[in-house]
Amino acid sequence: MSVEQKQKRIEIALGREKADLVIKNAGIVNVFTNEIISGDIAVHDSLIVGVGDYSGKEEIDAGGKYVCPGLIDCHVHIESSMITPAEFARVVLQHGTTTVIADPHEIANVCGIEGIHFMLNEARSVPMNIFCMMPSCVPATPFENNGAALTARVMEPLAGSSHILGLGEVMNYPGVLAGDKEILNKIELYDNAVVDGHSSGLSEHELCAYKAVGVLTNHECTNIDEVIAHLRLGMYVQIREGSAARNLDDIISGLIERGVPLNHCLFCTDDKHLQDISREGHISFNVKKAISLGVDPIEAIKMATINPAKCYHLKRLGAVAPGYSADLLILSDLNNFDIDKVLFRGSVVCEKGKKPNISRIIDDPNVLNTVRIPNLSPEHLKIRIKDDTANVITIIPNQLITKKERLAVPKDNENNFIPDEVFAKIAVVERHKATGNIGLGIVKGFGIRNGAIASTVAHDSHNLIIIGDNDADMLLAAKVLKEANGGYTVVSGGEVKGTLPLPIAGLMSDRDAFFVENKLAGMIESAKSLKVPDGIDPFVTLSFLALPVIPELRVTDRGLFDVESFSFIDI
Amino acid sequence: MSVEQKQKRIEIALGREKADLVIKNAGIVNVFTNEIISGDIAVHDSLIVGVGDYSGKEEIDAGGKYVCPGLIDCHVHIESSMITPAEFARVVLQHGTTTVIADPHEIANVCGIEGIHFMLNEARSVPMNIFCMMPSCVPATPFENNGAALTARVMEPLAGSSHILGLGEVMNYPGVLAGDKEILNKIELYDNAVVDGHSSGLSEHELCAYKAVGVLTNHECTNIDEVIAHLRLGMYVQIREGSAARNLDDIISGLIERGVPLNHCLFCTDDKHLQDISREGHISFNVKKAISLGVDPIEAIKMATINPAKCYHLKRLGAVAPGYSADLLILSDLNNFDIDKVLFRGSVVCEKGKKPNISRIIDDPNVLNTVRIPNLSPEHLKIRIKDDTANVITIIPNQLITKKERLAVPKDNENNFIPDEVFAKIAVVERHKATGNIGLGIVKGFGIRNGAIASTVAHDSHNLIIIGDNDADMLLAAKVLKEANGGYTVVSGGEVKGTLPLPIAGLMSDRDAFFVENKLAGMIESAKSLKVPDGIDPFVTLSFLALPVIPELRVTDRGLFDVESFSFIDI
Repeated sequence: MSVEQKQKRIEIALGREKADLVIKNAGIVNVFTNEIISGDIAVHDSLIVGVGDYSGKEEIDAGGKYVCPGLIDCHVHIESSMITPAEFARVVLQHGTTTVIADPHEIANVCGIEGIHFMLNEARSVPMNIFCMMPSCVPATPFENNGAALTARVMEPLAGSSHILGLGEVMNYPGVLAGDKEILNKIELYDNAVVDGHSSGLSEHELCAYKAVGVLTNHECTNIDEVIAHLRLGMYVQIREGSAARNLDDIISGLIERGVPLNHCLFCTDDKHLQDISREGHISFNVKKAISLGVDPIEAIKMATINPAKCYHLKRLGAVAPGYSADLLILSDLNNFDIDKVLFRGSVVCEKGKKPNISRIIDDPNVLNTVRIPNLSPEHLKIRIKDDTANVITIIPNQLITKKERLAVPKDNENNFIPDEVFAKIAVVERHKATGNIGLGIVKGFGIRNGAIASTVAHDSHNLIIIGDNDADMLLAAKVLKEANGGYTVVSGGEVKGTLPLPIAGLMSDRDAFFVENKLAGMIESAKSLKVPDGIDPFVTLSFLALPVIPELRVTDRGLFDVESFSFIDI
Repeated sequence: MSVEQKQKRIEIALGREKADLVIKNAGIVNVFTNEIISGDIAVHDSLIVGVGDYSGKEEIDAGGKYVCPGLIDCHVHIESSMITPAEFARVVLQHGTTTVIADPHEIANVCGIEGIHFMLNEARSVPMNIFCMMPSCVPATPFENNGAALTARVMEPLAGSSHILGLGEVMNYPGVLAGDKEILNKIELYDNAVVDGHSSGLSEHELCAYKAVGVLTNHECTNIDEVIAHLRLGMYVQIREGSAARNLDDIISGLIERGVPLNHCLFCTDDKHLQDISREGHISFNVKKAISLGVDPIEAIKMATINPAKCYHLKRLGAVAPGYSADLLILSDLNNFDIDKVLFRGSVVCEKGKKPNISRIIDDPNVLNTVRIPNLSPEHLKIRIKDDTANVITIIPNQLITKKERLAVPKDNENNFIPDEVFAKIAVVERHKATGNIGLGIVKGFGIRNGAIASTVAHDSHNLIIIGDNDADMLLAAKVLKEANGGYTVVSGGEVKGTLPLPIAGLMSDRDAFFVENKLAGMIESAKSLKVPDGIDPFVTLSFLALPVIPELRVTDRGLFDVESFSFIDI
């Protein structure tokens, strides 16, 4: 802040000059004293300069309504919403989120550093703060081929960037505990910033070790005992309420019961799908739910404002006070958290229920055209059954874990596997460097008949994953997604039933949220019509079948992977 | 922290290797959850690496006693104790202070940047954290000549120093509110660090302006309304309990009544003399007194540990948890704050009641030999009375403010002022650059008879100040302090009654605290025997008579200064 800017601020704060904008007659939520204070808020050049009695060139009469700081989602993977940062901002701003700390782990697995640049570049044009953490685990495992490796060396030149707040979730906690040099090198790069954690089930000693090397946060706590164990070490607990993982209820109830200070408790969504954001809201839902569970509304708001701002050293965010960014919500009700207006840096960016206007052009060649696969033939999909039985991935409805079973499966005269109503074929095709790597497997319980489903969203390497009961439809699905440069598709009987193109890294749409949400709903219907049973989300379940860290059996582009023995096995 | 250090920490935290030191069976004060937790504390290489169940190469059995983090004094002028940083550390460590944030404003007024280097250099050899703030107001006013000017340009090369945490108390708040470029330039240098405040009686608008440009703290609040006004703006309030200013009682009582969160409340001493530290303790006294007023002991400890650590971005200080510095107190009682042992970076530095051993050599020529004055003669001290009456500085017992009175004063045939039992003569001699500047004045109420008292501690420019009822003793006093290179002296009837040499910048002794405390006590007796009345501390009262910012009338080396009209006036 230059001296001239300071002089101007002084004049306005003293009331000698009119502010650019004054919000009159507000019930101001004070996150420092836990009070509601009646007064005006004077804004100049995007910052709050005064709270008290002011008049402005432009005035908004809050008419006694509440004004609180804009909300912060302190850990989110934007890619999980399948829209780009600008479109994501358009969606979540209306729910009062004015800052997100994004971990671009997914796009980094496809495009490396260039993917992070794309996210940050698009974020720049948006009326919202989008910060990033540097993804720490790309690739996530050595058992698959992804698009890029973010080594400590690759990260180093970006370590000082003001938009990258630290190191992203250190999922490789076994590596940390084993003293692995590469992950410790990455942590060292961010010794003076924030290192996000991702661990669960650590012993007391293990958690001490994790903290002692510098890990500061964790969003994987699911119960109050785990939360207390983290808080005691000075860690910050990011209470997650997303689409799949919903931990808020248990944790908040426990916190109320234990009566511990909440200043190291933050809110996050981690992964939240568009339809859930539409239905519930975004971080606003965490706040609302915490209030409904009995947390004082101001304390609930603090977990989404000043607490994360302090954790991540965002000194201008999270409060309604001089020197803070004028990211503000006008609320007609505090308990229901009814948002009337959202301001970002002193400008109204959306009014009740309306999405803000944000234009964008996506022309970054680094994130487009990322689906690179050779032409496939039926020969590529042949599974030879050598024994009487085969290793089968058995899906458990409503769960991410699978079972490894040894079963007799149908085969033809040449001992090639033939899918039927019980057993489907699955293929994971390396799609970043056209290596021709293809991993094949047999899946029980996905139920697909007369068709195939394919996706380029397949955690964490995001190869092309295809499941089906016949090679022709599987090959067609691959062809469709190659041409679309990534996405979701459903084909049946040689006909394409629906495709959601995700041309940005094969992960995100270039269309708006409304389109994506509706298209996706229709495609889930199409998939269901191919007899995918209840308890299985055709695309989400599919996207996890390639993740070689969740027990028991997975398939990557390098083959069938036994998570229990941490080794590849034959079918 | 290198990768090898991290690997070592992991091994120890996991219990695979023995820690350097383990404190067994502690009742650990947890500043994050407000609990007392039973367990062991494992220390390696000065840092805590584990809390739980550990064994060490060396073990201290706490036998169920409490262990809390070492205390932090977040705003102190070490020079006020008249001992150097190393000796100061020896004194306050035994009271549990393991970190101070010092504002070397006094020595900077004498020696400039070189004075700050002296403080930091001496601090380096000491088993205590001594951080500095960069003094913002040197010289304090344009109405006197001091030893050095710390302009923004002079400060700039030091702005990145890791031992300087920010900009020292911005006493020049009128300058800030007037948009003065020089002070705003200094604040700009520390935009990304901490800017300490010093203001009182600001209006709501003025306080907003002060905060809006970046001032974060204030140690001048004296009542709860002021405190609340500061907290609401997100400022930190440094609750002061020193020798002269004692604000803790009123503020703590108010905070308890209002029930606001205390995480922006910190403890400081500002100025505390040796005899008060000996009698009461140091920051430990703030903690103890807060507890006695009804603050929960853990909350009281937090105001002296984690709260200041967070305010000043000292991420390794203020808690007993992995990754924090092993600056620890073992306490036999929490409410009385009885300190059994003090550890700094994992080493016991003092045991109950004993001062630690700290050796030092003071040989920095930049801070020695700072008293440079010409030889004085009676001619220099002549005060010509032009009118029937003269402007007189009238002292009010027990207060720092003086009254400006126009009174008839005794004079000789040549109209020269003659001191008597009512009126004394005062002289302020510029002593940094031997300019020969001498300001003279008449003081009522100091009561000195048959002698003179002199000091090179005279706020804030620290010129040589002499008060007496005869020129011969005044000249002798000046000569004594010139030869001693600064200090305090009392002379009477041509005889030196006592001298406390303060050869370091004319502000600090090179002797130990015991010597200084005893010597000073004797000299106060000597001064009192010259009829200085009760309600006047001969040296402290004298040292403020040259400070041209406290109403109503003062004297600097440039002459008699009327604080009300902000101008020099004739006698």
